[in-house]
Amino acid sequence: MLLHLMTWPEVEEYLQTNTGIIIPIGSTEQHGPTGLIGTDAICAEAIAKGVGEATQTVVGPTINVGMALHHTAFPGSMSLRPSTLIQVILDYLTSLTAAGFTRYFFINGHGGNIATLKAAFSESYYHLSHLNIPQATQVRAKVGNWFMCRAVYQKAKELYGDQEGSHATPSEVAVTQFVYPESIKNASLSPDVNSGYPIYGASDFRSHYPDGRMGSNPALATPEHGEQLYNLAVKELSESYLKFAQAD
Amino acid sequence: MLLHLMTWPEVEEYLQTNTGIIIPIGSTEQHGPTGLIGTDAICAEAIAKGVGEATQTVVGPTINVGMALHHTAFPGSMSLRPSTLIQVILDYLTSLTAAGFTRYFFINGHGGNIATLKAAFSESYYHLSHLNIPQATQVRAKVGNWFMCRAVYQKAKELYGDQEGSHATPSEVAVTQFVYPESIKNASLSPDVNSGYPIYGASDFRSHYPDGRMGSNPALATPEHGEQLYNLAVKELSESYLKFAQAD
Amino acid sequence: MLLHLMTWPEVEEYLQTNTGIIIPIGSTEQHGPTGLIGTDAICAEAIAKGVGEATQTVVGPTINVGMALHHTAFPGSMSLRPSTLIQVILDYLTSLTAAGFTRYFFINGHGGNIATLKAAFSESYYHLSHLNIPQATQVRAKVGNWFMCRAVYQKAKELYGDQEGSHATPSEVAVTQFVYPESIKNASLSPDVNSGYPIYGASDFRSHYPDGRMGSNPALATPEHGEQLYNLAVKELSESYLKFAQAD
Amino acid sequence: MLLHLMTWPEVEEYLQTNTGIIIPIGSTEQHGPTGLIGTDAICAEAIAKGVGEATQTVVGPTINVGMALHHTAFPGSMSLRPSTLIQVILDYLTSLTAAGFTRYFFINGHGGNIATLKAAFSESYYHLSHLNIPQATQVRAKVGNWFMCRAVYQKAKELYGDQEGSHATPSEVAVTQFVYPESIKNASLSPDVNSGYPIYGASDFRSHYPDGRMGSNPALATPEHGEQLYNLAVKELSESYLKFAQAD
Amino acid sequence: MLLHLMTWPEVEEYLQTNTGIIIPIGSTEQHGPTGLIGTDAICAEAIAKGVGEATQTVVGPTINVGMALHHTAFPGSMSLRPSTLIQVILDYLTSLTAAGFTRYFFINGHGGNIATLKAAFSESYYHLSHLNIPQATQVRAKVGNWFMCRAVYQKAKELYGDQEGSHATPSEVAVTQFVYPESIKNASLSPDVNSGYPIYGASDFRSHYPDGRMGSNPALATPEHGEQLYNLAVKELSESYLKFAQAD
Amino acid sequence: MLLHLMTWPEVEEYLQTNTGIIIPIGSTEQHGPTGLIGTDAICAEAIAKGVGEATQTVVGPTINVGMALHHTAFPGSMSLRPSTLIQVILDYLTSLTAAGFTRYFFINGHGGNIATLKAAFSESYYHLSHLNIPQATQVRAKVGNWFMCRAVYQKAKELYGDQEGSHATPSEVAVTQFVYPESIKNASLSPDVNSGYPIYGASDFRSHYPDGRMGSNPALATPEHGEQLYNLAVKELSESYLKFAQAD
Repeated sequence: MLLHLMTWPEVEEYLQTNTGIIIPIGSTEQHGPTGLIGTDAICAEAIAKGVGEATQTVVGPTINVGMALHHTAFPGSMSLRPSTLIQVILDYLTSLTAAGFTRYFFINGHGGNIATLKAAFSESYYHLSHLNIPQATQVRAKVGNWFMCRAVYQKAKELYGDQEGSHATPSEVAVTQFVYPESIKNASLSPDVNSGYPIYGASDFRSHYPDGRMGSNPALATPEHGEQLYNLAVKELSESYLKFAQAD
Repeated sequence: MLLHLMTWPEVEEYLQTNTGIIIPIGSTEQHGPTGLIGTDAICAEAIAKGVGEATQTVVGPTINVGMALHHTAFPGSMSLRPSTLIQVILDYLTSLTAAGFTRYFFINGHGGNIATLKAAFSESYYHLSHLNIPQATQVRAKVGNWFMCRAVYQKAKELYGDQEGSHATPSEVAVTQFVYPESIKNASLSPDVNSGYPIYGASDFRSHYPDGRMGSNPALATPEHGEQLYNLAVKELSESYLKFAQAD
Repeated sequence: MLLHLMTWPEVEEYLQTNTGIIIPIGSTEQHGPTGLIGTDAICAEAIAKGVGEATQTVVGPTINVGMALHHTAFPGSMSLRPSTLIQVILDYLTSLTAAGFTRYFFINGHGGNIATLKAAFSESYYHLSHLNIPQATQVRAKVGNWFMCRAVYQKAKELYGDQEGSHATPSEVAVTQFVYPESIKNASLSPDVNSGYPIYGASDFRSHYPDGRMGSNPALATPEHGEQLYNLAVKELSESYLKFAQAD
Repeated sequence: MLLHLMTWPEVEEYLQTNTGIIIPIGSTEQHGPTGLIGTDAICAEAIAKGVGEATQTVVGPTINVGMALHHTAFPGSMSLRPSTLIQVILDYLTSLTAAGFTRYFFINGHGGNIATLKAAFSESYYHLSHLNIPQATQVRAKVGNWFMCRAVYQKAKELYGDQEGSHATPSEVAVTQFVYPESIKNASLSPDVNSGYPIYGASDFRSHYPDGRMGSNPALATPEHGEQLYNLAVKELSESYLKFAQAD
Repeated sequence: MLLHLMTWPEVEEYLQTNTGIIIPIGSTEQHGPTGLIGTDAICAEAIAKGVGEATQTVVGPTINVGMALHHTAFPGSMSLRPSTLIQVILDYLTSLTAAGFTRYFFINGHGGNIATLKAAFSESYYHLSHLNIPQATQVRAKVGNWFMCRAVYQKAKELYGDQEGSHATPSEVAVTQFVYPESIKNASLSPDVNSGYPIYGASDFRSHYPDGRMGSNPALATPEHGEQLYNLAVKELSESYLKFAQAD
Repeated sequence: MLLHLMTWPEVEEYLQTNTGIIIPIGSTEQHGPTGLIGTDAICAEAIAKGVGEATQTVVGPTINVGMALHHTAFPGSMSLRPSTLIQVILDYLTSLTAAGFTRYFFINGHGGNIATLKAAFSESYYHLSHLNIPQATQVRAKVGNWFMCRAVYQKAKELYGDQEGSHATPSEVAVTQFVYPESIKNASLSPDVNSGYPIYGASDFRSHYPDGRMGSNPALATPEHGEQLYNLAVKELSESYLKFAQAD
């Protein structure tokens, strides 16, 4: 059930029995020499659709551009400032809460979004509590990071070991290959790839990670892996969503 | 060429010869009893992809939620405040200009976005001129509204006459039917539909347009019409884009 | 009835029967070699006073500085950023709505203000709807651009033909000559004047319009023309205002 | 020399020898049963014009609406929030400094503006120092409050003694009577008028000052007093301006 | 009674009979060759604690960094922008007012904070009046500047005469010596020290006041003076606070 | 070396060889029936001073109020909104970076600050990179949470087992008892204490955690435990700081 493919009377009816919504959030940022710039949005959107189907929950439109300031020294990367993203989330939650939604489950494809999302939730609870919206105090929001699912993590470890790395990982690349098999990219990848260096600003990031990868070997990815990882993520996040949405 | 399906080295190469990018912007808002909530985003994204192919131009990620505050009394509608959308556009243009892009063509599916987009362009030119980005003074942005293309307008007039209306129009519904034929909705539509009343706030809007339509009869839409309208829009906006991108 | 020349008990009494207010908004920006920097504010203020008298409506203080960022490469030009102007309008409407005003008619002298004003109205409706002000949902705002009045446009066409242009026009210069006959300026005007080039940032604007005019020949202006144009604008905007203020 | 009655080449020429500008700032707020709502703007504008003539200095457009939140429980009062006014001042100084102005003398008619103006100057110095404007570090701004001129104060004391009060004073009313003799208002004024109570929020203000006056008896005002006070203010502020503008 | 050393039930009990709170605000900025960077915060905090004890009032946490942009050309100085400080104060007052506090007495150690604090109070009254907090209209805030207490001023005059100056004064240095006798600094001080020059931006400030002092001779300070000044400030501000808190 | 007890020439000298600074950040929020409202600030400040001494590093002023919106339904709690805290951090880093600091180590006492701090660092790197500050690209910031130190965690586990809980923990209470032995509070604590419930808005928090504790038994705390925990935290964070500050 994609919100974009529903009509407003269908949403009105849905809200009679369910006040939950899943919102995919990704990023538009470099993913190394072979990873798609849309990787994080593609994964989040695909998995969110899967969770929506599995749990009969409305899936909202994907937030395609997230907090990726540290990637912006690579061409094609886009980012909101954290202060902008906070206002975006606040606006989303205000619109939807006024209509009756109260459970917001963000399926997230990008580690860099997590801190700002959490800050945005706090800002939104506060802001909503000062509006004249009856259900404002019942609002709850949660981030579900598909790449941090226990089963996904274990599978990635099993498939790639240390070559999973932490950015432009074979596991996220595999999911994009599963979703867009016609867009599998090839490029020679240096076997030497930096890892473990903390993330600060954009130029610092690029100087330490010159091709954009962080300790990863995305050449190991296959569409078949992607399908497995996708299925594991959908299953685990569906359980996580239901637990969240049904809690008192 | 979708930015999301490219790698950063591909973007780097593209920028050697082309500094233009197309960004689809839609809205997430009620479109009457049968129109999809994602109508404006669906149309903008589909047409933008068409224009991107026709002109060999990179197409950025779709801005799914726009300025639709006046629709927010209908469930499922989402909106950014204008002040938020201005910051979003400013962030997009800052990221992309730093990488070398200088021509921004927003293919827009929602009339309510136009004013804020224009305000955002002014704010962005100013902001960019004060950053240390060499190409900042060369930045230009333009809105291309597919529904205001001359050929689209004439075809809609020819197909629907006065029943085109101005929101939840048969022409935009037709394009969504062409793109998502499996999501064609049916509902009984009152023959009496208000029109011509100006747009103010959300509750005022709903009291004047109780089912969300503004003078339109979307029951006239067909996927075949949608294909025709899509083709006309892609053709005209492609010309418009090239003229914009190639101007001195 | 100028708000500035009223007392608060007079305003209180006025609000018993009338909740409309006219607010002139202009700009402080170059108007070519002979046009006054205050042209847009002068025209808007004079015409607004005329409309106020004709319709017995309170006229608020003039917004002298508007959105003119694209003119700021010429000395003497001043501008608010769009994001600032939105907050200014929001503050105006909040103060006045709390007092009981609900119909805001902005008489505007500058094309560059239109987009930001419309964005500001949307932001304000939203903002007001979340305050504890009973009449907030009844608030309506409208822009009346004197230079876009049908009768003004026709008269300008008749008087100046293609030499009307689109900035530093003889028609607006004529109105300032009617209002300030002691401030008529003379300077040699190059017969070659650019026109039709779109507006982007400030340095781009000046490089395309080196003396500030856009396709206009302000040397054609006379104070007598100004009086005619003033009268046409007052008449048409008075009708427009009354229709707006008296609508259900 | 009013900026609004100059052309941009005239400003360009002026800047060859003078980088000072005078900006009147008033307020739109209740001034008791007989004081004009525009009192503070009227006084500031008239005196600023006088100072501009006396010192051959450009006078910018009047800021008509200032920081008067505490007056907004009286109808007709308008106010910017301090945070908005700071952005307005910052935008003014950015536009003008980019053109070459460096000395900003605000002639102020409203005590409530002073704190925010000073905060705005600090914010502006900081902001300008981070833009690429060569003369940014030379920018200086100063508030000249006409009602706090020593000679004005002494004259008011001499004319009105304790009945001068601190808001809707006979001295400011007198200046408006001098400027707008056709707008002298009469109303019965209670002899009992509160004074000395500090200013907090708007409803608190109105409950302590029910007719808007603060310890004043504006019935004592005459246009002749107004002329005397005007002349004293122009003389003293002209000296103050020249000292400011000519300092190293 | 320091808020930081209380529990929430103790605060709840306190609020049954008292809704006042004292908040120290200082600055982190250069104080000449021998003055401590924390001078303004140290003085404000110490005196606030004294006033809290004397009046049995809760003392909140110290705002250590204030509005000191003009000092930031000296290493170690820190500053909030005025627009940031306004939001900080607004957040403080919102949290505390929601809990039941209504009287806010800021004991201030830095002249540069005054304007922004006053602007912040206005912004906060307005903001709070639009939240759903019953006691919002009863909120009152006041700045008590210890260095402007009449008795302090007289004592400083008596002790230091003209060598008191206006920044890095012997009186404030003396109070820090009383509070932190182990941190008394020595350095040779030029007998020539500028004074009387107005404060504009940071680089302008440093060029006129090269060692950071403004007309002062802090070498005259002693811990004994500090104790005297501290006692005078505590006494006078305690009276001032009680008058403020107990007013109708 | 506390910044507040240094002079600006001492800071200037320090910066010749060291560009690191430690900034304590706490919170002002309820800590259950017996925990001090200042617990998080007290712990952070004490430990930061210890780390500063151990590593010969400047320690900046404590940020006493953090992001604690979820605690604000308990009296005495104070909070910045995340968007405010981001601006505060940005201002701190801008002031200090302009002076030459480049390594920012925030010693943090409150879990609720972490997300906003990380968002603020990203915003600051971006913002600084657009100012004219040479060392801006070398800026790095890091959060060191004393309560998440491995040794602290193990000791707390050993001392308290499951009764450590996650808010108003015996370990943090113990540290405050060590620092302020005269402020040890007693109150009867219900043996039933909720735990494991996620944190959403303020009223939701209080309804799930009615006395403010989250699964903890602070009655187990002793000043002796506090000293042990303090020492462990200082040792581990000193190592962590040095590794951070000395990294390439």
